[in-house]
Amino acid sequence: MNYLHTMIRVADPAATLHFLELLGLRELRRVENPAGRFTLIFLAAPGDIDAQGRGRAEVELTWNWPPEDGSAPETYSGGRNFGHLAYRVDDIYETCGRLMAAGVTINRPPRDGHMAFVKTPDGISIELLQRGEPLPRAEPWASMPNTGSW
Amino acid sequence: MNYLHTMIRVADPAATLHFLELLGLRELRRVENPAGRFTLIFLAAPGDIDAQGRGRAEVELTWNWPPEDGSAPETYSGGRNFGHLAYRVDDIYETCGRLMAAGVTINRPPRDGHMAFVKTPDGISIELLQRGEPLPRAEPWASMPNTGSW
Repeated sequence: MNYLHTMIRVADPAATLHFLELLGLRELRRVENPAGRFTLIFLAAPGDIDAQGRGRAEVELTWNWPPEDGSAPETYSGGRNFGHLAYRVDDIYETCGRLMAAGVTINRPPRDGHMAFVKTPDGISIELLQRGEPLPRAEPWASMPNTGSW
Repeated sequence: MNYLHTMIRVADPAATLHFLELLGLRELRRVENPAGRFTLIFLAAPGDIDAQGRGRAEVELTWNWPPEDGSAPETYSGGRNFGHLAYRVDDIYETCGRLMAAGVTINRPPRDGHMAFVKTPDGISIELLQRGEPLPRAEPWASMPNTGSW
């Protein structure tokens, strides 16, 4: 038995793809299902992609296409039973800097050089953890306050 | 960069542990934090546990202890942004049979010998996918209706 993926629903696949690619994930494959009116997009972190280009631990984005009758598409918000997805990164300051430069809010900045939280456009929390020992404390992170929840 | 875990919150850690161990996951480690009044439990599927007993893809259960003032503990329900966790299993009929014998509802039975859905006690959907080719269609699964949502 082995883990395959965590599936999240997205209201705007381009927006979440942009966010996850900024974070460092890569799209591995995509399934378009016109009959079911949905698109599935599978991504993985570089460290989870094998030599054949297959993901060993993926995130699956489900995009339900807007209704054919022109009614409003579903929007997504979170419950409390789901917490977050977690990734280990090589340089948490570099990752958070890249996201912040692109306009992403760092909800829990890596003040301790160890842990940060951000959110996808649909409010899925993502935990980032520094690989190995925490980095030395450094500005602007060390004095950056929290923003919102995660 | 690599995937570490998906975190879910649990109202009753024993109930979710029982469920996930029935499913086939194994507890790898546990963090009790009396100051923060929370317990973290990390599990992984056998196929994701390395020779040193470390999980390569884990699920983290967060149990927030009941408030000290005696007020009601938090209960958990789901939003729509989170979909499910998915695991590949060696024999989907055996896995679903084991869960059903223990009283778990098979929300989406493996009628096709390929895919099933169940839910944790806090309503987290779990997708089960048969390893390799689908199994030959077989009763009682082939004619079992869906129950609820997943």
